[in-house]
Amino acid sequence: MSNTMQNTTQSGDQNRQWVLASRPQGAPTADNFRLEVSAMPAVNDGQVLLRSVYLSLDPYMRGRMNDAKSYAEPVALGEVMVGASVCRVVESKNSAYSVGDLVLSFGGWQDYHVSDGIGLMALPADMARPSYALGVLGMPGLTAYMGLLDIGDPQPGETVVVAAASGAVGSLVGQIAKLKGCKVIGIAGGDEKCRYVRDTLGFDACIDHKAADLASQLASACGEGIDVYFENVGGKVFDAVLPLLNPKARIPLCGLISQYNASELPAGPDRLGLLMGNLLVKKIKMQGFIVFDDYGHRYNEFMQAMVAWLQQGKIQFREDIVDGLEKSPEAFIGLLEGKNFGKLVVQVGAE
Amino acid sequence: MSNTMQNTTQSGDQNRQWVLASRPQGAPTADNFRLEVSAMPAVNDGQVLLRSVYLSLDPYMRGRMNDAKSYAEPVALGEVMVGASVCRVVESKNSAYSVGDLVLSFGGWQDYHVSDGIGLMALPADMARPSYALGVLGMPGLTAYMGLLDIGDPQPGETVVVAAASGAVGSLVGQIAKLKGCKVIGIAGGDEKCRYVRDTLGFDACIDHKAADLASQLASACGEGIDVYFENVGGKVFDAVLPLLNPKARIPLCGLISQYNASELPAGPDRLGLLMGNLLVKKIKMQGFIVFDDYGHRYNEFMQAMVAWLQQGKIQFREDIVDGLEKSPEAFIGLLEGKNFGKLVVQVGAE
Repeated sequence: MSNTMQNTTQSGDQNRQWVLASRPQGAPTADNFRLEVSAMPAVNDGQVLLRSVYLSLDPYMRGRMNDAKSYAEPVALGEVMVGASVCRVVESKNSAYSVGDLVLSFGGWQDYHVSDGIGLMALPADMARPSYALGVLGMPGLTAYMGLLDIGDPQPGETVVVAAASGAVGSLVGQIAKLKGCKVIGIAGGDEKCRYVRDTLGFDACIDHKAADLASQLASACGEGIDVYFENVGGKVFDAVLPLLNPKARIPLCGLISQYNASELPAGPDRLGLLMGNLLVKKIKMQGFIVFDDYGHRYNEFMQAMVAWLQQGKIQFREDIVDGLEKSPEAFIGLLEGKNFGKLVVQVGAE
Repeated sequence: MSNTMQNTTQSGDQNRQWVLASRPQGAPTADNFRLEVSAMPAVNDGQVLLRSVYLSLDPYMRGRMNDAKSYAEPVALGEVMVGASVCRVVESKNSAYSVGDLVLSFGGWQDYHVSDGIGLMALPADMARPSYALGVLGMPGLTAYMGLLDIGDPQPGETVVVAAASGAVGSLVGQIAKLKGCKVIGIAGGDEKCRYVRDTLGFDACIDHKAADLASQLASACGEGIDVYFENVGGKVFDAVLPLLNPKARIPLCGLISQYNASELPAGPDRLGLLMGNLLVKKIKMQGFIVFDDYGHRYNEFMQAMVAWLQQGKIQFREDIVDGLEKSPEAFIGLLEGKNFGKLVVQVGAE
C-alpha cells in the first residue's frame, strides 16, 4: 500500500505523506524524513475528507521530532509529521461541512486526511489570503499578541526588544508594540532582513545578530535599557539582552530556536544561578507560554484586533511560500537555520 | 571622636556603630566589620533621637556589602551597616513624636541615630512583642505573604515547596500555604529544624537539605509534582526542584542565599539555556521581587490578615534573639551559614 517514490504533484487518487524516518542528532537532515505514497484514506459516516492547501512549518516541530516528552507527545517513528494546515473539504459525510468548505486543521505534512470535525475551525470559503490563517490570523499572530500584551504588558515609551524580528511572530510583536507606543528594537539575520524590519515594519532600529559587536550595538540602540524582551531565540542574543534588562522587565518566553538543535549543554561556567540572580535583583518576570494551551480561549479578542489592524493597513505581514509538499523537509531545515524570510508556508495544492 | 574599643553595653552617652571595614571576598569574616564608638548624635529642630531596641539581621545585607550596584546602593566603606530596627524615641524636637514612642526605622547596626521622621513607622508603644515588627509583622511577613499569594497564587490541593522552611520567610510561606489548602513540603537544614517544621508549623513533610539523597526524597514527597516553589535558596535545592516542576508552575524568586557568598560562577556545563528551556516547555513563571519596592502599598492588607491569624493561633513564629549589638557580625555570618533557628534579631538595648 505504500512506497517511497517521489511525487511532486498533488493528485486526486493518492496521498503523499512525510513521515518521521529517524530522530535527528542535532540539526535535522533530509534522511530524518521519508515520503510515503498511500491510497486515499477511507471516509466513514460523520467524517470529512480534507485536501491540504497550505501547510504551516514552525520551529516547535523540531521538539516533536525528539523522543522526549515535552508539552506535547513526540511524533512516533513512521508517523506523519504534525502541523497545522488550511484545507478544502473534498468529500463530506458530516452534515456540518460541505464540499468546498475551507477549514483550519491540524492535518500534518500530507495531501489528504480525514476528520470527524472535532478541532476543525471553519474559515470563510472565499477568504482572500487563506494562508493567513496559519500566520498573522493564526497561531503565530495569537502568540505575538498574547505573549506581548498579556505577559509583556508593554507601556507607552518603554523599550521592547524582539529577536527573529522579520519572522512570523517577531514581526508582529514589534508592530504591535509600536501600535502601543513603545520604542522597538529588532534583531534579525543579515542586512536585507534588517532593512525590511526598519523600513517596512517601522521598528526604530534593527541589529544584525551576525555582527561581531551585537552586544555593543544593542546597548547603543537601547539607551534606556530594555523593559520587555520577547524571547524566541535564546543563545547569544539573550546573552546580549541580559545585562540591558531594566528593573521590573518582563520576558515572555515563546521559543528558543537557537538551542533546538543542540545535542548537549554548552560548556561552562554554569550561569543558571547568574540568570536567577539577575531576575531576583532586577525583579524580572520570565514566563514560558504555549499559546493554544494558555490563550486559546482568547482567540476571538485577538482576531477582532488583528483583523482591524490589517484592514487599516497598520500591520504588514510577509510570507515565504514554498511550492510543493515535496519541499517540506528542506524548507523546515532551512527554517531552523534562519533561511526563510517571513512566515514559512508550504503550498501543497491549489486553493 | 571615634575609636575601635569594644563596648558591650548600650549606654546613654555614647553611640556604638558597626561599620563596613572591608568588602568580603566570598563569605564575610569578622574583620569585614569594625565597631566604632562615637559621641551621641546631635538632635536638630524637627528631628528625633532614636535608641535601637531590636535590630533585624537579614540575608539581603550580604548584597549591600558588595561594591556592585544591586537593587539598592552598596554600603560605602566606613559607613554604618544598614538594617531595620525597632527603636524608642529618647529625645524629640519633632511634634509628631514624643519621648517613649516606639517606631520602626531603618536605623542600621548602631545604638542611636537621628531621624527627621520621614520613613518612620509608628508602632503601639505597649506592643507585646516589638521584635515582631521585624519579622512576622514586618518585612519577612510581607515578603512571604505577597510572594506566595500574589506571584505564587497557590490553589487548594496544589503542592507548594519552600526552602529555608524554618526561617523567617519560609516558615510563614508554608503556614500561609497550609491555610490556603495546599500540600506543603519544606526543606530545612538538620533534624531539629525539620521536626519543628513538621510538628510545630504543620507542614506535610520536611526534608533535610544536607541529606545525600535530597533529590529522591523530594521527588517521593512531591508525588504529584510541584506547583509553587518559593525560592529563597538556589543551588542544589533548586537543582532538586527543577525536574519536579509541573506545567504552569509559579516560582516567586525571593532570595538565593546559597550563592550570596560565591565569588565566581560554578563550573559548567552552562545550564542557563536548560533553565529557560524548562520554563518554556512547562509554561512556568519565574519572577523576582523586592518586597517594599513591589508591595509596600499593600502593607495594610497584609497586616489585617496576619494579625488575625496570629490572634487565632493559626500562625507560629519563632525568633532567634541574640543579646547585644556587639554580637551582630558573628550572628550575621552564622545566618548565611544557616546557623540561626528562626528569625534572627539582635537585642540592642532594653525595651
